[in-house]
Amino acid sequence: MTHELLGGSRGAEPPGGRLLERARSGDKRSVARLISMIENDEPGAAAVMRTVYPETGKAAIVGVTGPPGGGKSTLVARLGASYREQGARVAVVAVDPSSPFTGGALLGDRIRMRDGFLDDGLFIRSMASRGHSGGLARATLRVVNLLDALGTGVILVETVGVGQEEVEVVRVADTVCLVTVPGLGDDIQALKAGVLEIADVLVVNKSDRPGADETVRDLATMLSLGKGRLEFTPPIVRTSAQSGEGIAELVAAIAKHREWAARSGERERRRLAAARGEIEALLREELVRRLRGRVGADRVDDIVKRVAARSLDPYTAIDELLSTR
Amino acid sequence: MTHELLGGSRGAEPPGGRLLERARSGDKRSVARLISMIENDEPGAAAVMRTVYPETGKAAIVGVTGPPGGGKSTLVARLGASYREQGARVAVVAVDPSSPFTGGALLGDRIRMRDGFLDDGLFIRSMASRGHSGGLARATLRVVNLLDALGTGVILVETVGVGQEEVEVVRVADTVCLVTVPGLGDDIQALKAGVLEIADVLVVNKSDRPGADETVRDLATMLSLGKGRLEFTPPIVRTSAQSGEGIAELVAAIAKHREWAARSGERERRRLAAARGEIEALLREELVRRLRGRVGADRVDDIVKRVAARSLDPYTAIDELLSTR
Repeated sequence: MTHELLGGSRGAEPPGGRLLERARSGDKRSVARLISMIENDEPGAAAVMRTVYPETGKAAIVGVTGPPGGGKSTLVARLGASYREQGARVAVVAVDPSSPFTGGALLGDRIRMRDGFLDDGLFIRSMASRGHSGGLARATLRVVNLLDALGTGVILVETVGVGQEEVEVVRVADTVCLVTVPGLGDDIQALKAGVLEIADVLVVNKSDRPGADETVRDLATMLSLGKGRLEFTPPIVRTSAQSGEGIAELVAAIAKHREWAARSGERERRRLAAARGEIEALLREELVRRLRGRVGADRVDDIVKRVAARSLDPYTAIDELLSTR
Repeated sequence: MTHELLGGSRGAEPPGGRLLERARSGDKRSVARLISMIENDEPGAAAVMRTVYPETGKAAIVGVTGPPGGGKSTLVARLGASYREQGARVAVVAVDPSSPFTGGALLGDRIRMRDGFLDDGLFIRSMASRGHSGGLARATLRVVNLLDALGTGVILVETVGVGQEEVEVVRVADTVCLVTVPGLGDDIQALKAGVLEIADVLVVNKSDRPGADETVRDLATMLSLGKGRLEFTPPIVRTSAQSGEGIAELVAAIAKHREWAARSGERERRRLAAARGEIEALLREELVRRLRGRVGADRVDDIVKRVAARSLDPYTAIDELLSTR
């Protein structure tokens, strides 16, 4: 197993154990350090995840996504403040898949500067893509699980954009809010195909702008076209994150979806899908690692060279690799 | 092996054999059908890929990417026409990862309507994400390999957007053109972090618009900041795809990069990386498939349920799965 090879064995104190202890007592720096461990799959990360896993599954996980320019950061800051007022411990995980090259996304920093930095009950983290496909959604799920196990009541996962990777990331949420604004024009068109499939709550932010009525009407039309396909009709909530208008309604809409999801079995379905995804990802990593250990890096390199040179096709290549004992 | 299970065995006529024969004689409908087979991983797809693989590696693969609104479709149509004039057989593969939900992307259709539909030497195909992360880049590579083996001289791979998935897709190309336009403002800022890492040729399209000089200057500054890190300094080419201005210069810049890449070993490096990626992807699929066969779907489902219910952590879960004999 990965965690045994990378340090730490079952039953013994995991390497991240002391950090975990400090994180549990509320030390933000230790939480941040643990998240980095998990993001980079450092030694001890698997042991930490294994330890905390039984304590996960309690937090309300709220996804906030939508095209750039929708005011999502401000909206998330407002939502976070609102949940803080209710007494919940809150975390914001801001994920920016469109910055695959930077080590740290800027989003979190922006929010951090605005407010809440000195609030012990609010934790903010930004994540950028680590450069391998599928990795970001998995890393996000693990970070969310850690925060959940540490007693965070509400975890807000914010992503920018509406591509495939954002969809994967936001799927970790129990409730997904899709944020649009008046006047997005073509971008709304681009959303159309997918919006009904990922959104649990539709938000028209900056709704004091001209064109808000039209945007609400467009969204309602899209929803009515998809009626029958949906078990839960997403409410359309108007907000103005700048002024704070509509935030209470949004919090109520999220709570309503959460209740429905628990009652209808939808939450259970999403959790099963998340569990299956995580197991498959770990399996793939582990199986390839084992095979590589058995076959040897030199032999793998040789086969890669022959495939690149077209003297061997990739299908015969894996026959060769798998028949190596 | 996948291909044996799914029909067809080594040495025997592969199920896609007759289609392949027709595709080789220039029948576009058969090419389209083969691509669908590959995209959907239908029975016979692996056998087709195995058959054609030795004949791949000859085409010039040119990637065209950049933020939406840059006029990439028109630019690609112009490029395609220019290569057709040189006598090459040309294929356009238009990939739209931001439409994960539609079966077929609209881009290709748009170009198809414009010109070239009756030209036997021009093949146009659009692809949308198939809903699993990483899958789109792999499917694109396989489609490109098929077109390459069928004697296509130039394959233009067009993607929309600049996120992680677009980067993965466009990596199949020997030469990557990054298309910007004057006045993108913040979007140029968003490119900054990544632009130097994926672009071989920088294109300022719609360069008859105000602000073109500024955009060129911004790009040049970005390049100069990255100097020393790059073995090949991407040229900046001004185009106006609408009028056709600058297309000849762009074709020349692509050819120059292609020569450099062949000479410097860069093309070889990219092909090794592509081969390694393809082998790993096939290995992962096959290993998980074998394990699932050995363990049984019921037992996998049971383990997934226990992980979702938090009575089992995913790490112990894969210990259990892997120790099943």
